[in-house]
Amino acid sequence: MTTAAPILLTPGPLTTSARTRQAMMVDWGSWDDRFNQLTASVCEQLLAILNGTDSHHCVPLQGSGTFAVEAAIGTLVPRDGKVLVLINGAYGKRLAKICEVIGREFSTFETAEDEPTTAADVDRLLHADHAITHVALIHCETSTGILNPLQEIAQVVKRHGKRLIIDAMSSFGALPIDAREVPFDALIAASGKCLEGVPGMGFVFAEKHALAAAQGNCHSLAMDLFDQHSYMAKTGQWRFTPPTHVVAALHEALLQYHEEGGLPARHQRYANNCQALLHGMAELGLRSFLPAAIQAPIIVTFHAPKDPRYPFKEFYERVKAKGFILYPGKLTQVETFRVGCIGHVNAADMRAAVAAIAQALQEMGRSELAREGR
Amino acid sequence: MTTAAPILLTPGPLTTSARTRQAMMVDWGSWDDRFNQLTASVCEQLLAILNGTDSHHCVPLQGSGTFAVEAAIGTLVPRDGKVLVLINGAYGKRLAKICEVIGREFSTFETAEDEPTTAADVDRLLHADHAITHVALIHCETSTGILNPLQEIAQVVKRHGKRLIIDAMSSFGALPIDAREVPFDALIAASGKCLEGVPGMGFVFAEKHALAAAQGNCHSLAMDLFDQHSYMAKTGQWRFTPPTHVVAALHEALLQYHEEGGLPARHQRYANNCQALLHGMAELGLRSFLPAAIQAPIIVTFHAPKDPRYPFKEFYERVKAKGFILYPGKLTQVETFRVGCIGHVNAADMRAAVAAIAQALQEMGRSELAREGR
Ligand SMILES: Cc1ncc(COP(=O)(O)O)c(C=O)c1O
Ligand SMILES: Cc1ncc(COP(=O)(O)O)c(C=O)c1O
Repeated sequence: MTTAAPILLTPGPLTTSARTRQAMMVDWGSWDDRFNQLTASVCEQLLAILNGTDSHHCVPLQGSGTFAVEAAIGTLVPRDGKVLVLINGAYGKRLAKICEVIGREFSTFETAEDEPTTAADVDRLLHADHAITHVALIHCETSTGILNPLQEIAQVVKRHGKRLIIDAMSSFGALPIDAREVPFDALIAASGKCLEGVPGMGFVFAEKHALAAAQGNCHSLAMDLFDQHSYMAKTGQWRFTPPTHVVAALHEALLQYHEEGGLPARHQRYANNCQALLHGMAELGLRSFLPAAIQAPIIVTFHAPKDPRYPFKEFYERVKAKGFILYPGKLTQVETFRVGCIGHVNAADMRAAVAAIAQALQEMGRSELAREGR
Repeated sequence: MTTAAPILLTPGPLTTSARTRQAMMVDWGSWDDRFNQLTASVCEQLLAILNGTDSHHCVPLQGSGTFAVEAAIGTLVPRDGKVLVLINGAYGKRLAKICEVIGREFSTFETAEDEPTTAADVDRLLHADHAITHVALIHCETSTGILNPLQEIAQVVKRHGKRLIIDAMSSFGALPIDAREVPFDALIAASGKCLEGVPGMGFVFAEKHALAAAQGNCHSLAMDLFDQHSYMAKTGQWRFTPPTHVVAALHEALLQYHEEGGLPARHQRYANNCQALLHGMAELGLRSFLPAAIQAPIIVTFHAPKDPRYPFKEFYERVKAKGFILYPGKLTQVETFRVGCIGHVNAADMRAAVAAIAQALQEMGRSELAREGR
């Protein structure tokens, strides 16, 4: 089963539908009404997914997800604010790095990569340091696939009268988040993740009052979400040239999202993908890094076969030749690789991927190799 | 002549070829070798266009062109540097705004929107203020279409031992710039302009020594071109998720650029477009804002018919219904509109656009209206 275009089992860019890509076959004028309507429709649909229409603005931003994360922190944390950054993986570390580079005071709280931050941790930390104004959290930490208890942490942050910034890059659209129950100042995601668009833009759901008070905070012109939103509210247009084809693809992807049945259906499909993957890999003797209870159905980290003969590169190329693109691990301590459950793929694709993985290991003369490693 | 997808006569996003858009029908893994090769090939081709392979690095950046401009200033101007910003339009003003927001000291020199900055001006200004470390210039100021004398200014800047930052967003690829003859620290452009890719990424040609000395300068994590380049040089990958489809489209657009005959051919086609446009519009009695000597063959600003009955919106919609998207003016003092000469269009398209404009004016009962305005 060799295909010219392999299926991406990576957490964005991911496999999109032909219909979504087809939406990029048109050139849009960025000043044209029809394009403005496309943008407005995208923002409305995004807000509706988290029931945020009344409470939040959706501010789209050019660039990758990290640009939107930096924009959210730069715009919504005042220059004299202090951010408590909760870390259990690479993307949490990146939040701290952003605070450092853009000059926002911050402290960090780090747990092991297989240990979610708890609401009790946050409660304790906020009691101990009253200077903290904002808490920043990764919802699904994509570097392992671990899920942090967003709802509980949000309640604690609110009880302390502090503001929450949520990087929901790899969970938004697939895992339920209700803005009426989860108070936050900013939630950040991007086009090329669970909504199954193509990469090229992020978006920030910004609480309306917080955004209104954010003029002049930002360290950057291009990333100023206050300016971005004001301009768009006034003109219907993006402040600087939008990635028109990416916006059109996201619009088409959102139509399919609703046709599929919205968040519950998307969640269910990814959960099925994850189950099929975990089940199949277990049969091959490949162990997942996280226990099931804290594993989000987004991306799964697997221990690499414990064998010095196992080179990830060869494994990757062999699986790719069979039509599937895997993802390297992102842990420093343990040798791992990752398989995404998201994108325009279903459980049958996951089973086919497992078959390809089995075959690849066999070809490498290591069919027993995974089992030995248990 | 009504078409579903009108031809964009706007200075980016612009009309791309079907072949370029078709390159977006594949999903690429951002970690995959084949995609890394695509990126490397794009950067090599871009460097070759300005003969910069030996002297400069090409650093691509996610986002719109403004992101790349801000990244270039933030990365290459040290925190204690001072920028002389040369202004004769909206994009020059934006350079100054960037310096202000990111906290780089700057001064401005502004000429009228139909008056190029001269090398003599720059010479005088650099003599008068020795604190200036960098000069920032718009090559073709897209808000009118005026061309600034890049080569002469670059020589003066060099003679003073200062560094030059060039926003060549709307000229790169069409107007000749030779890095062996025009000394600069940074030259900035983007995918969706004269290379006829789709919008979604910019790139900065950064002088190798200047970039090597720029660690820690940048005010932003996502826009740090030193980090972006180091990571890419080490891994072959983008530091954060690349706009994969945009990169693939740019790669395909560059192949066509070379097939067409590279810069001389592209320049000639745009010059022909510009001539056909100016000639046709003159016949309709529509006057261009700039004299021919300083008009770049990129975008032309026309005086709107001097008649209170002329509403741009209606004119725009009527021309659009005939298959062409125009661009509003960007001048505050004079009522204008703009027509781009760039994109996958030729002189016949420009003549058809002029015919559509003539018809639109006629329908509006104002066939004589332009003439009256002369
Ligand atoms: C949780 C999380 N945050 C941030 C990012 C960064 O996004 P990008 O690579 O688009 O900049 C990612 C990307 O996968 C992510 O999963
Ligand atoms: C000269 C110049 N500079 C900067 C820009 C800004 O680019 P963007 O709109 O992609 O941010 C443009 C856009 O047309 C331009 O023409």
